[in-house]
Amino acid sequence: MDLPRPRASRKGGAGMSEAIGPKIPDRDSAPHRLRAKRLGVLTSDEPVVFMRSDCPACRSEGLSSRSRVLLRAGEKSVIATLFQVSADWLDIGQAGLSNAAWELLDVQEDVPITVHHPDPLTSFSQVRARIFGNRLDAAQFREILDDIAARRYSGIETAAYLVSGSSFPLDREEMVALTRVMVDIGETLTWQQSPVVDKHCVGGLPGNRTTPIIVAIVAALGLTMPKTSSRAITSPAGTADAMETLAPVDLDLPAIRRVVDLEGGCIVWGGAVRLSPADDLLIRVERVLDLDSEGQLVASVLSKKVAAGASHLVLDIPVGPTAKLRTSAAGEALSVQLASVAARFGIATSVVITDGSQPVGVGVGPALEARDVLAVLQQTPGFPEDLHARACALAGALLELSGKAAPGEGAALAALTIANGVAWAKFQRICEAQGGMRVPPSAKHRRPRLAESSGHVTAIDNRRIARIAKLAGAPGSKAAGVEMHARVGDRITAGQPMFSVHAETSGELEYALAYADANPEAIQIDEGRPKEI
Amino acid sequence: MDLPRPRASRKGGAGMSEAIGPKIPDRDSAPHRLRAKRLGVLTSDEPVVFMRSDCPACRSEGLSSRSRVLLRAGEKSVIATLFQVSADWLDIGQAGLSNAAWELLDVQEDVPITVHHPDPLTSFSQVRARIFGNRLDAAQFREILDDIAARRYSGIETAAYLVSGSSFPLDREEMVALTRVMVDIGETLTWQQSPVVDKHCVGGLPGNRTTPIIVAIVAALGLTMPKTSSRAITSPAGTADAMETLAPVDLDLPAIRRVVDLEGGCIVWGGAVRLSPADDLLIRVERVLDLDSEGQLVASVLSKKVAAGASHLVLDIPVGPTAKLRTSAAGEALSVQLASVAARFGIATSVVITDGSQPVGVGVGPALEARDVLAVLQQTPGFPEDLHARACALAGALLELSGKAAPGEGAALAALTIANGVAWAKFQRICEAQGGMRVPPSAKHRRPRLAESSGHVTAIDNRRIARIAKLAGAPGSKAAGVEMHARVGDRITAGQPMFSVHAETSGELEYALAYADANPEAIQIDEGRPKEI
Repeated sequence: MDLPRPRASRKGGAGMSEAIGPKIPDRDSAPHRLRAKRLGVLTSDEPVVFMRSDCPACRSEGLSSRSRVLLRAGEKSVIATLFQVSADWLDIGQAGLSNAAWELLDVQEDVPITVHHPDPLTSFSQVRARIFGNRLDAAQFREILDDIAARRYSGIETAAYLVSGSSFPLDREEMVALTRVMVDIGETLTWQQSPVVDKHCVGGLPGNRTTPIIVAIVAALGLTMPKTSSRAITSPAGTADAMETLAPVDLDLPAIRRVVDLEGGCIVWGGAVRLSPADDLLIRVERVLDLDSEGQLVASVLSKKVAAGASHLVLDIPVGPTAKLRTSAAGEALSVQLASVAARFGIATSVVITDGSQPVGVGVGPALEARDVLAVLQQTPGFPEDLHARACALAGALLELSGKAAPGEGAALAALTIANGVAWAKFQRICEAQGGMRVPPSAKHRRPRLAESSGHVTAIDNRRIARIAKLAGAPGSKAAGVEMHARVGDRITAGQPMFSVHAETSGELEYALAYADANPEAIQIDEGRPKEI
Repeated sequence: MDLPRPRASRKGGAGMSEAIGPKIPDRDSAPHRLRAKRLGVLTSDEPVVFMRSDCPACRSEGLSSRSRVLLRAGEKSVIATLFQVSADWLDIGQAGLSNAAWELLDVQEDVPITVHHPDPLTSFSQVRARIFGNRLDAAQFREILDDIAARRYSGIETAAYLVSGSSFPLDREEMVALTRVMVDIGETLTWQQSPVVDKHCVGGLPGNRTTPIIVAIVAALGLTMPKTSSRAITSPAGTADAMETLAPVDLDLPAIRRVVDLEGGCIVWGGAVRLSPADDLLIRVERVLDLDSEGQLVASVLSKKVAAGASHLVLDIPVGPTAKLRTSAAGEALSVQLASVAARFGIATSVVITDGSQPVGVGVGPALEARDVLAVLQQTPGFPEDLHARACALAGALLELSGKAAPGEGAALAALTIANGVAWAKFQRICEAQGGMRVPPSAKHRRPRLAESSGHVTAIDNRRIARIAKLAGAPGSKAAGVEMHARVGDRITAGQPMFSVHAETSGELEYALAYADANPEAIQIDEGRPKEI
């Protein structure tokens, strides 16, 4: 897992490359100096250092396993979790580094590393106060988020911060302050063009890959849409993963500007741009907790849009029994918060509550979703109508919001832009500008899962379908995933395929199908009358 | 760090040795079977497994770094955190285990290990509900604590649980329910003798080593006091660490019974007895958060006393500016909670609010504190009067509470029992019964820190003194620590020693003194008039 390096150009605060001064006198004497060793250990975003328990640094600093330690190499420093080693695969003078620690320290093999106790995390007293109900202002959020972005918080401290905003939900002023802080600690983009439009889907839905279609439509109609997307964190595909099967997405800032100046839009991976450096770290802990911290969600979403320079924003909020938001009321309450805070940053917002009851389109997985995007843009017979309709609704909302279409006429204009081939032509030009269009790969192995009874499909479980796609290898194997053959309301007969698993290895194929066999509720068939849908 | 093995005799629930069935079909086919390899990595109490990122198990299960995985070996299973390895110091077919994982799985080198996705943590939905303010009942606490004791919670989830009880404090019924659950998931001791007395100090104070003295006094006077104590977690010495320099403390249950039957009391390490298996795991995360979760503290303290079979309990609550509790009001509020909940379990309680403004006695560190204990019991000239007074006050409270002394006469009886040599004789017999009396070691290196100015000592910082003792090597080096030469109120002249650092290596000595030099506020000297103390 490659971690983005801190960039010299970003605004201060996150401070990874600043010297973090310990209160203990800095005594880089021989006993506390170790030699860097790359262990090739992937620890996600947590820097970890392995040291012999009998090394002088551990003994004289009184370090114990899982201590947090401050590592320094030259001008760089990082706070890491210490794992002690009592075996001789590590030398007594070595500091074995996880990949995250190695990259943040920017060292080479055998470079000297010094080890210290870190300063106390003074910002955590703000978290403690928040736990007991105190409200935080921008300066206090800034202290906390600076430390999180600099990876000074362990998972334990990050969890406490997130829970503090759940037990006592953030009020409007806190959401605005937190959004502002999350913008300030990252990089920001500015554009000559106006308006600059953006789109965000709150809470993933498998196969909901509208972004490439929307960008093609609105850029074709003269709007500017510099779209930065994420890779999957826990889902079978992020927009960047799917788009990468169609064109390069690892563009740096000058390349993004060039594409947008040329074509009016792009669909790139946002990881290299660091619009919100604390966000991925927070998301990872949020997923473990599966916790609904509305204030943090609002700030996370909007800070990226403010930082990306958006003036007009459409929010897609899918609602359904196995979506992130389960009721329309919850979706509407969230959309009020999002629109109100966005307004404070001068962003005009339009919220579209969409059907989140089942996966969108046919494919779930990077290449399979890319094929759906192509089918819609090319109007291939049998293209997924639901994906087409969603993309037109969302693109239409953007067209109306930015004055390119009269109220009520946006979706029809979007559909026309697909039908007349203009969106497809624009999409091809964007792909060329990003480095050249690609053909999405096909999986070596595929096998259908057959219905065991006849009846009507009454429900499809988004989470289980996503799980099957991941077990099949998505997003690591770009071609892997699930191809849906049934939708809610369809009449199905026993023996008919409900979906097919695509995989690159037979092991993954078997494993995904075994999970599907054990989880028949992934697709529920009612043998009686169809329910009212 | 040795982890206590789960014992077959303990009551069900924690379930480490039960099979934890994954919902995914159990397919122990070749691709998911790995060979155990002991890596000798100390990760404190967190089981960690290292696997090659390109191994079939990682690929076919769709595992990513920091996934939680279910490991099985024979009948044993454990949930571990996965760190992936992209280097060849680990074979593609190996599961490299941290010591915690190795011991919980109870495996040998190359034993087959299978890897699965763990079941969802269903108890965490109770934590989520608690975060939003729902009260929990005993059954709900039981689900959570069973999972924590079985190490199914990562630090992130444990942190969320602890914060949930801080944002919305536990009410009295929740404290009673949680105490009951923490008793139920551990082992319990029963005694023929009555009364069975116990003592607990809430919030450590450096050098506050009254326990061995109290046990000697009350056992000499016919009370039963089977005292199980802890080792230091983050302090320079726990009672078990100090006592270990005087006699063996690693006694199993039959040995404890034999000592107590013979002498009426013991001072042993509680780690082998598992009175409250979730507690150490919770304490470790609480220390990171430095969070005041009163309900959890009450349940943690009292569950161990209930499980140990205590009928009468004295609580020592030190209050001072650098103690855990900073005001008398806070100390009294906590004592009301403790006494009320204890009463629900039939335990008579007496609370003694004590002076927590400075370290107790002369020594801070295992052997140095043991020497203070000996000086008090032997009435060596110059013995630490404050330690003597505290031990007599607390022993006196126990004697009064259990009817061995009339109200108001307990402390005097305790002092007499020291003065006439009866307590010292009893202490020697207890040490012999535990395996033989030892002489505490002396440190190779010692050097005083001298006062830089003259005046009166106005404050001593418990936390900084503890830190100096730890930097000197305590508790790992038994002889290491700090020997205090000054107390609050003392008149001191420039150049006079304020304290001496004791260390086993010159490096540790230097490092502790360098920290002391950089932290002159460890002992504050006012050059003007003495403050009213």
